[in-house]
Amino acid sequence: MKQDNESDLTRAAQGPDGEPVRLSIDGQLMSALLRSMGEPPVRIELWNGDEVGCTKGKEVARIRIANRKSLLKLVVDPEFQFGECFTEGTLRVEGDLVKLLAVLMRGLNKYTSAVRQFIDWSRRRHTNTVADSRDNIHAHYDLGNDFYKLWLDPQLAYTCAYFPTPSTTLAAAQVAKMDLVCRKLRLQPGETVVEAGCGWGALALHMAANFGVKVKAFNISHEQMEYARQRARAEGLGDCVEFIEDDYRNISGNFDAFVSVGMLEHVGRENYRELGTIIDKALSTNGRGLIHSIGLVRPAPLNAWIERRIFPGANPPSLREMLEVLEVPGFSVLDVENLRLHYALTLKYWRENYENAIAEVTRMYGEKFVRIWRVYLSGSQAAFETGQLQLFQVVFARQYTNEVPWTRGYLYGQEAA
Amino acid sequence: MKQDNESDLTRAAQGPDGEPVRLSIDGQLMSALLRSMGEPPVRIELWNGDEVGCTKGKEVARIRIANRKSLLKLVVDPEFQFGECFTEGTLRVEGDLVKLLAVLMRGLNKYTSAVRQFIDWSRRRHTNTVADSRDNIHAHYDLGNDFYKLWLDPQLAYTCAYFPTPSTTLAAAQVAKMDLVCRKLRLQPGETVVEAGCGWGALALHMAANFGVKVKAFNISHEQMEYARQRARAEGLGDCVEFIEDDYRNISGNFDAFVSVGMLEHVGRENYRELGTIIDKALSTNGRGLIHSIGLVRPAPLNAWIERRIFPGANPPSLREMLEVLEVPGFSVLDVENLRLHYALTLKYWRENYENAIAEVTRMYGEKFVRIWRVYLSGSQAAFETGQLQLFQVVFARQYTNEVPWTRGYLYGQEAA
Repeated sequence: MKQDNESDLTRAAQGPDGEPVRLSIDGQLMSALLRSMGEPPVRIELWNGDEVGCTKGKEVARIRIANRKSLLKLVVDPEFQFGECFTEGTLRVEGDLVKLLAVLMRGLNKYTSAVRQFIDWSRRRHTNTVADSRDNIHAHYDLGNDFYKLWLDPQLAYTCAYFPTPSTTLAAAQVAKMDLVCRKLRLQPGETVVEAGCGWGALALHMAANFGVKVKAFNISHEQMEYARQRARAEGLGDCVEFIEDDYRNISGNFDAFVSVGMLEHVGRENYRELGTIIDKALSTNGRGLIHSIGLVRPAPLNAWIERRIFPGANPPSLREMLEVLEVPGFSVLDVENLRLHYALTLKYWRENYENAIAEVTRMYGEKFVRIWRVYLSGSQAAFETGQLQLFQVVFARQYTNEVPWTRGYLYGQEAA
Repeated sequence: MKQDNESDLTRAAQGPDGEPVRLSIDGQLMSALLRSMGEPPVRIELWNGDEVGCTKGKEVARIRIANRKSLLKLVVDPEFQFGECFTEGTLRVEGDLVKLLAVLMRGLNKYTSAVRQFIDWSRRRHTNTVADSRDNIHAHYDLGNDFYKLWLDPQLAYTCAYFPTPSTTLAAAQVAKMDLVCRKLRLQPGETVVEAGCGWGALALHMAANFGVKVKAFNISHEQMEYARQRARAEGLGDCVEFIEDDYRNISGNFDAFVSVGMLEHVGRENYRELGTIIDKALSTNGRGLIHSIGLVRPAPLNAWIERRIFPGANPPSLREMLEVLEVPGFSVLDVENLRLHYALTLKYWRENYENAIAEVTRMYGEKFVRIWRVYLSGSQAAFETGQLQLFQVVFARQYTNEVPWTRGYLYGQEAA
């Protein structure tokens, strides 16, 4: 047994090309972590000069770790501590941050230690009561409209865009997404729509202006609602769109369509059945619904760092979990589309816009904030590129209604008027 | 309390136009059943001359019940006994059987008695071990190919067709369905496909002949496999399609695509995780999968009469339950389409073909068999028309692969080569 352990250490102390290298105990530890992650193509340099990782020149990026404390944090709780150390500047990256995060995400899927599982299980997470939701949403979406204007599209759509071709611009792709949603909902002039979680109001205004519907749009972010109301007035849509600063749980009335783009992530699984009941009450006999949400291939907690530092209370569901919303009221699922790669491309644009505005962001919020948002946007792009995150659009109607499209061809031009 | 009961009885003894009618205790009972079903638009005539139901002339069909024994059976266990009494001839229908069954299905959803629930809970159902599956499948699919030739399309596709327009013929719609499945799977010449539950082999042969792939097709129905092998030889496709008379649980090898059309209904929920593991083993890194299955809006047992007399062991899942197959191996769901109304139309054609061949069916199997299949085909059409049954096509791939279509436009002509 002892001999085996010794030979393991000997192997660990070999360089990437097999040549013997003398590693410190810290280097050995880092090397062991990489092995347990399936040896992702990265090179890591420690404060003491030790360097571990793949064959030189094959790495997608290089990581520099500044001290032993950061190394130990990373080994014990890598999901959470990568973001923390990156923010503090004790972990620095040279090279492509998105590619690096993509290979690390793939690697972490292989690395299952009991310690990691225990830490993840015991982590305190935010809940989503009406009061908590208000705090959770305020923390992210009320950062200041000026900040989001720096890197979102002109209409401030902060959800996955839809690129009819990969060369569509971000601004056009956000309009195309809104159009796709409206086509899927088969909106007719004069109909009524309720929107749960309307962001800065782009979709509500688009539906009213282009499809002639009346919209009630709910959101609990104060800054977003101020902006949305101003835009409605400026565009002469004040009579068609009512922006209501209130929780989706207080939706009342009866509508031809229910739509929610990018809110389910914040609802919390414990509230899915209640959301289903709310939709059931809100929707007319021939009503249509669409839920657009980030999702997962199987149930899992959101990355701990994202949940703590970016989206408190957020919790994307697996598609199966999403369907809990619809199963109790007995809605018929008509269509599910997965737009994962469209979100990866959306995030690429957001990240590029963000980096182009970095001087302004630094001036507004400082260096630490810049790093937090850099690793968040890069990590999100990597997560959609690697399938860690998915994006589902689910269309539904009542079980009994036969007022449903005969095929989906109308979505793709052939039958569109 | 007694007075209330009496006044109920008095109301029950009023005719459809409010005129006082003297009903026997049997008529009262039938009338009470109809009330508990929300008064569906039917008229029911009893052996003793009593007539109950909606206003005369408003009924979609008339039912004649031949004796008290049948009446009592219907009241206690309507789901099961409608089919039984129809088969025995003690319940006869004048008018449109499909419309009648549609209004009764809607009504039964409202009629929840403790007795009905207890009966349904205590009903013995068939299981789906490897041995049981063989018996269950034999009971239905080995009835004789000559029988199915009387009313299916020329290729004997015994699953939901896809009608590009509602005026497409059944034969063309079955070809269109096979094409749709192949397009969704993005089959390329030279690729390999495994099919679980291949019926009479139409899809396997279509894939080989039109998409240049090699297919291994599994099925445990002996009659179907004999037929499929003969067809493969006759069409010179013996080298491209291997028909294997074996359970899907014995699939081995690695394939570019997995497809299963109309088998999941027979798998049984207790076997979904195992099916997921089998698909996981069978699929290559960039492999695609498609499962086509009858489904439900929420979990429920299959209609008891259908399970006993038509499809022993069958058990259509809700979409949420279907996703159990894919969630454990962590497949990414790319696309879900609901083709419920296409199945209603498919069944309309099958039923019409069946009625046109009724003399031949009677000669082959007798009157009782004719009635069993009449009520089964009519009830199935009604079930898809009313949303009691749904039809889901689910397309999936591995979580990490980015070899997925950019949009779904290619399915609808624009981008198709």
